[in-house]
Amino acid sequence: MKTRGFACTSARAPLAPFSFERRAPRADDVVMEILYCGVCHSDLHWSRNDWGWTVFPAIPGHEIVGRVIEIGFKVKKYRIGDHVAVGCMVDSCQQCDQCLKGEEQLCREGNTGTYGGFDRFTKEHTLGGYSKHIVVREEFVLRVPEKLDLARAAPLLCAGITTWSPLKTWKAGPGSRVGVIGLGGLGHMAVKLAVGLGAHVTVLSRTPDKAADAQALGAHALLVSSDADAMAKAANGFDLIIDTVPVKHDLNPYMPLLDVDGTLVIVGQIGPLAEPSTVPLVLGRRRIAGSPIGGIRETQEMLDFCAEKNILPECEMIRMDEINHAFERMEKSDVRYRFVIDMASLEVA
Amino acid sequence: MKTRGFACTSARAPLAPFSFERRAPRADDVVMEILYCGVCHSDLHWSRNDWGWTVFPAIPGHEIVGRVIEIGFKVKKYRIGDHVAVGCMVDSCQQCDQCLKGEEQLCREGNTGTYGGFDRFTKEHTLGGYSKHIVVREEFVLRVPEKLDLARAAPLLCAGITTWSPLKTWKAGPGSRVGVIGLGGLGHMAVKLAVGLGAHVTVLSRTPDKAADAQALGAHALLVSSDADAMAKAANGFDLIIDTVPVKHDLNPYMPLLDVDGTLVIVGQIGPLAEPSTVPLVLGRRRIAGSPIGGIRETQEMLDFCAEKNILPECEMIRMDEINHAFERMEKSDVRYRFVIDMASLEVA
Repeated sequence: MKTRGFACTSARAPLAPFSFERRAPRADDVVMEILYCGVCHSDLHWSRNDWGWTVFPAIPGHEIVGRVIEIGFKVKKYRIGDHVAVGCMVDSCQQCDQCLKGEEQLCREGNTGTYGGFDRFTKEHTLGGYSKHIVVREEFVLRVPEKLDLARAAPLLCAGITTWSPLKTWKAGPGSRVGVIGLGGLGHMAVKLAVGLGAHVTVLSRTPDKAADAQALGAHALLVSSDADAMAKAANGFDLIIDTVPVKHDLNPYMPLLDVDGTLVIVGQIGPLAEPSTVPLVLGRRRIAGSPIGGIRETQEMLDFCAEKNILPECEMIRMDEINHAFERMEKSDVRYRFVIDMASLEVA
Repeated sequence: MKTRGFACTSARAPLAPFSFERRAPRADDVVMEILYCGVCHSDLHWSRNDWGWTVFPAIPGHEIVGRVIEIGFKVKKYRIGDHVAVGCMVDSCQQCDQCLKGEEQLCREGNTGTYGGFDRFTKEHTLGGYSKHIVVREEFVLRVPEKLDLARAAPLLCAGITTWSPLKTWKAGPGSRVGVIGLGGLGHMAVKLAVGLGAHVTVLSRTPDKAADAQALGAHALLVSSDADAMAKAANGFDLIIDTVPVKHDLNPYMPLLDVDGTLVIVGQIGPLAEPSTVPLVLGRRRIAGSPIGGIRETQEMLDFCAEKNILPECEMIRMDEINHAFERMEKSDVRYRFVIDMASLEVA
């Protein structure tokens, strides 16, 4: 099917209107009209080829919500008109131990990214959600509960699940003490979700000026990491720290905050860490881990949880043709907390 | 009570004969005649003030076995003549959550080291097991099962428990795939204990020349870390890697070996790690942890397990007056796998 989007044709080109063909729906495919798409920092990295493996023309976007406009004849779960969503992956082998456990994000063959991946049948390069339509196999389509505001739900599909998954893996809940480093797209969702799960949540910030923001998001406390006394008092005070910092950083100030058997989970940074000392690890049996997105079942669970608890990302709505400016602002952390593209604007772009 | 040992009086002085006073036994104390004492790499660091906080004169030694020669009137578990042992700690607060859980090594107030600590009552500097006698409160004395060869049991008290504890914490057993990096005092015990627990055990070595040693210790496989093909084939093949390397090193070659949710546990190195990449952590939900020694209950469990399974360290017996030469050899990794001092030799030293 013919559709339109915003693509970049080289690492230096701005995103610009682009017409292209989506595959004709297969028997198990859902065709979705995209209504909103969140803007993830990965979209910027991908567009600019920061990782060195972008295939151009590239269409980013993996926080996708919309409605079903067509279904393949084998599709069982969805009907035309349903509110649905697609996150960071659109396929996996569906046969390995990880897929069978519902952890498609950890598929042994690698999952197929919503953009930058390759279709398992046609080998075509996948193109993301900065577009009018997308065609995705049923197993990778999520249901957006009626109660969830469709316009604000989009960032749940990446920022939401990326913080939800470690909160669940490490069993955050009533009685657990959760810290969140970094208060951007991921961090603000980590706070809301951990609060929703009943944990005691502290925002870790270099400066005290985040206090009002932290409180507004529902956090119970702010710990200023440049305050040596406060940090010393907080030692051993956390079971889990969700570290959303997206750039190379030093974990050493944070590790003593973990209690015995506590874990700091990196979800934001891809690359080398500054040299961590083994002292707090060995002497306190502390742990450093990483976590990617989550599986499909877990993503649906998170969407249902957010509907039940009325948890929504804080979004700044933009038009499609504002995307290049939004990227510039995102680079300066000038967004509270996530840009979401209103795809209706694509008509007039 | 008057006793004798080998002490160093400064960071540059060799260990030499030294007479000193042990405290008179308190009501809950066990007085032990030391028959054997293992030589741990920490003993060398302590003697040479490598950590900068050695108090001289210093007597190292925290792999101590011997027999009870006197008991305080409140001592219940031990009688004169019993075979007993003392490891890396001789006291803790006994009241915090960690102590109440039997994890005295993680005592909130810090445990009292067998050497380099300070007695909780007298504030005297503790002196270790390179000596004829030691006085230790009952709760920190272990029972050496009759079946265990007393001469070879000593290294279990540090090298044994330091590798046993993470094997138990991370639930190594039948069906689990355990790797061991470094085949020294700790590493060779990690292999024996993991094999004893029923795990599939692989020694990771930079060169293939460790194959015979690995096999002799009971390992099921050797993986040569300089063999890129073998390493690639082994990806995702381990649930737990016990890393006993005692110096700064690079974890990046090893991390991809871990399966999803697998953990590399550092037990050998105290200091900064070379910059680890977050890529294998995040994309494979892998983990890096540290682990200190173990608690008293866990140490007793390990001694009983070794007696039941007939697991003993490989030891090279030395006389007390050979200790300075043994330190030199240990620095060159010229020991298979642990020096043990026969304390009877102290009489004639």
